[in-house]
Amino acid sequence: MQFNITKDFLEEICTLIESDNSVQLEHILEELHFADVAEIIDELNLEQAVYIVKLLDSEKTSEALMELDEDQRDRVLNALSPKEIADELEEMDTDDAADILNELPDNIAQEVISELIDEQHAEDIVDLLRYEENSAGGLMAKELVKVNENWTVTGCVSEMRAQAENVTRVHSIYVVDNNDKLKGRLSLKDLLTSPANTPIKDVCKPKVDYVTVKTSGEEVSRIMRKYDLEAIPVVDELDRLVGRVTIDDIVDFITEEAEKDYQLASGISQDVEANDSIWDLTKARLPWLVLGLVGGIGAAAIMGGFEHLIKEYAVLFLFTPLIAAMAGNVGVQSSAIIVQGIANDDLKGSIGNRLLKEILLAMLNGVILAILLFAYTFFAEREFLTSLAISTSLFAVIIVAGLVGTFVPLALHKRGIDPALATGPFITTSNDIFGILIYFLIAKAIIGI
Amino acid sequence: MQFNITKDFLEEICTLIESDNSVQLEHILEELHFADVAEIIDELNLEQAVYIVKLLDSEKTSEALMELDEDQRDRVLNALSPKEIADELEEMDTDDAADILNELPDNIAQEVISELIDEQHAEDIVDLLRYEENSAGGLMAKELVKVNENWTVTGCVSEMRAQAENVTRVHSIYVVDNNDKLKGRLSLKDLLTSPANTPIKDVCKPKVDYVTVKTSGEEVSRIMRKYDLEAIPVVDELDRLVGRVTIDDIVDFITEEAEKDYQLASGISQDVEANDSIWDLTKARLPWLVLGLVGGIGAAAIMGGFEHLIKEYAVLFLFTPLIAAMAGNVGVQSSAIIVQGIANDDLKGSIGNRLLKEILLAMLNGVILAILLFAYTFFAEREFLTSLAISTSLFAVIIVAGLVGTFVPLALHKRGIDPALATGPFITTSNDIFGILIYFLIAKAIIGI
Repeated sequence: MQFNITKDFLEEICTLIESDNSVQLEHILEELHFADVAEIIDELNLEQAVYIVKLLDSEKTSEALMELDEDQRDRVLNALSPKEIADELEEMDTDDAADILNELPDNIAQEVISELIDEQHAEDIVDLLRYEENSAGGLMAKELVKVNENWTVTGCVSEMRAQAENVTRVHSIYVVDNNDKLKGRLSLKDLLTSPANTPIKDVCKPKVDYVTVKTSGEEVSRIMRKYDLEAIPVVDELDRLVGRVTIDDIVDFITEEAEKDYQLASGISQDVEANDSIWDLTKARLPWLVLGLVGGIGAAAIMGGFEHLIKEYAVLFLFTPLIAAMAGNVGVQSSAIIVQGIANDDLKGSIGNRLLKEILLAMLNGVILAILLFAYTFFAEREFLTSLAISTSLFAVIIVAGLVGTFVPLALHKRGIDPALATGPFITTSNDIFGILIYFLIAKAIIGI
Repeated sequence: MQFNITKDFLEEICTLIESDNSVQLEHILEELHFADVAEIIDELNLEQAVYIVKLLDSEKTSEALMELDEDQRDRVLNALSPKEIADELEEMDTDDAADILNELPDNIAQEVISELIDEQHAEDIVDLLRYEENSAGGLMAKELVKVNENWTVTGCVSEMRAQAENVTRVHSIYVVDNNDKLKGRLSLKDLLTSPANTPIKDVCKPKVDYVTVKTSGEEVSRIMRKYDLEAIPVVDELDRLVGRVTIDDIVDFITEEAEKDYQLASGISQDVEANDSIWDLTKARLPWLVLGLVGGIGAAAIMGGFEHLIKEYAVLFLFTPLIAAMAGNVGVQSSAIIVQGIANDDLKGSIGNRLLKEILLAMLNGVILAILLFAYTFFAEREFLTSLAISTSLFAVIIVAGLVGTFVPLALHKRGIDPALATGPFITTSNDIFGILIYFLIAKAIIGI
């Protein structure tokens, strides 16, 4: 039942656009889900894409616009007039409309807002614009179904029907008092099974999970996951019900956050995709590579300080990439575990205990790896002292790398900085430098040079 | 409204357990959401945890068990008799019950199944056990509401009510024919607004997205995200409706997959958490470190092949950690972008085009980085040829590293292997070796030694 774009189908669409056969096009596309229409628009060139958006009903294109690849959406919006964008926004949920406005240049956004006809809708959208993107306020939509606690069951059923028209999925009916303060919630079932003249106050469930407009997106997602919620109401500073966050937005949020963390850990600093331009990809990748370059130059400078040893102890220099690589690997492992622990909110105990545990862990790994390395180097070089120096240094480097990997994300988190920043190239680079310095210092001490 | 465990509260619970004050305990805990009860049980020692599980109603503990930390759940289940586990399973949704049985040793699972009283429930659970974990069959639950297309609206409302009792959230009513084949779906609204004697056939929406029991979890999650679905029906090989997957399970699935990919990219091969034992953490981390060690030894061996140059061209050896680090960083970046592109199913074009793009990208980054490195080395060493050799090698190494990082995940994916395996330590290690080999070969050619 799912739709897959075939090459033939896409060619058919293109031919119909070329020949301006709008009747046939409408006929084909109105059968499709908006997500499929979006998939088609993503494959078209700008001119064709705009043709389709202008051809189809805003009811369909407004939803399709939200599903487009961000770059393609930017281009399409750029080709539409403020009035045309406003027409699309009229059909959108308030949260989607606010997201679109946030993507537009300020002056265009202003023009679009002034073209909106439905005043309540416009007011709701503008209201959403003032919240931070990564907060419950920025994630919520204004669309919800609410009833007054002082109404009776009958009184509110008709009112509720009218409200539900604008709401795609009802999930819960929220109960408020005369000041719009959130008092509880109702299920449709409760409403339908209660006598007609019961006051809402008596049927509503007073216990309701909620978040405030300022609650962070991570916290909203944690709460919704923990309690398996499909929607959560959002209140303002005065406990007034102002919106709700639905699970589909949280699914998108979780996916985006996971991608961002994964990219940060891989040394990619902006949200890019494989299909982005070489220029965009370079902007996201080059800064981390430059950091790596600086780190490598630092390592070379440190090694340069020990260059007088190179003739007699050449073998020490052969193992520097190994030391750097192991320091990097251990650091990345340690930081990844801490970053995930922070994200899942399941780190227990103090930083001190955390570091102690990491030391024990690094000692266990370090001993095993050092023995393996000693066995190899002694077998290959037959020099006891050099082999001992190299493997002992590895042991020390692993412990320090583990500590740095554990400490840095914890420290960043304490200061309110995203700990994921500390993973990947940052840890690898700093551990490379630390590692090589420690390596030479210990080797020098053991060999006695 | 959200619950936070305080130290005082936890101490109160412990004291009540010590003094065997079950009345007071029940009074406190029955007010709490099962997810909160789970959070408390996670903090208790085994004896206390088992006390709580045995004390409370299965209705609450069965749900709380699913929310427990996996290790704690294993311990608790281990302390319960098969009969006691069966009591919990009676209250669970079929998918959760099947997950629990999958966690138990085979012989215990068998005993638990034989203790189940509700035969239909037992049959449903056993049925779920035969599907692979990472498939729609493994993710689905048997609980759903279905009606026959030949019934009338009235005829099915009462039948539906009975079914809905066992289903936490209805989402959609599925319509089947006499052979249980999925024919369409209905919303509650459609049902309530249609005349009483209309055949279901005439009100049902024939277009319904579905997946088969064999559809992979990734594909289910992609479809549900694409179409913003809150539930999707699952059919067997004969198109018969056998279950449905709900969005809360997909949220868990997405989160777990993202964590797994993130861990693989960081060189952690099993699902571990910061709170796991040092032994478990070592098992997850050591294999990748050994791989790194072997890679480092390989790099040392390659450098050993050029050791005769070390006296005259010591500076070449100082930059080996830099070359290895850059090869690793570029490789990780490239593979991360490909892995995400594969996961999001938005890689367009052939492998050839992909590699060509990566070459261009690597050339752009490579030129910039090579110029920077040349500037530094020439300034520091004042040797034109050596500086040229080092920076040209860096350029070449970046291109090769980018190609390896792009090609390996694509090739793994073609062979049906999780491309995330190729990220992190695997790419870093292989690129270290490649990088250093290319570096010395090019340096040798340029300097003419």
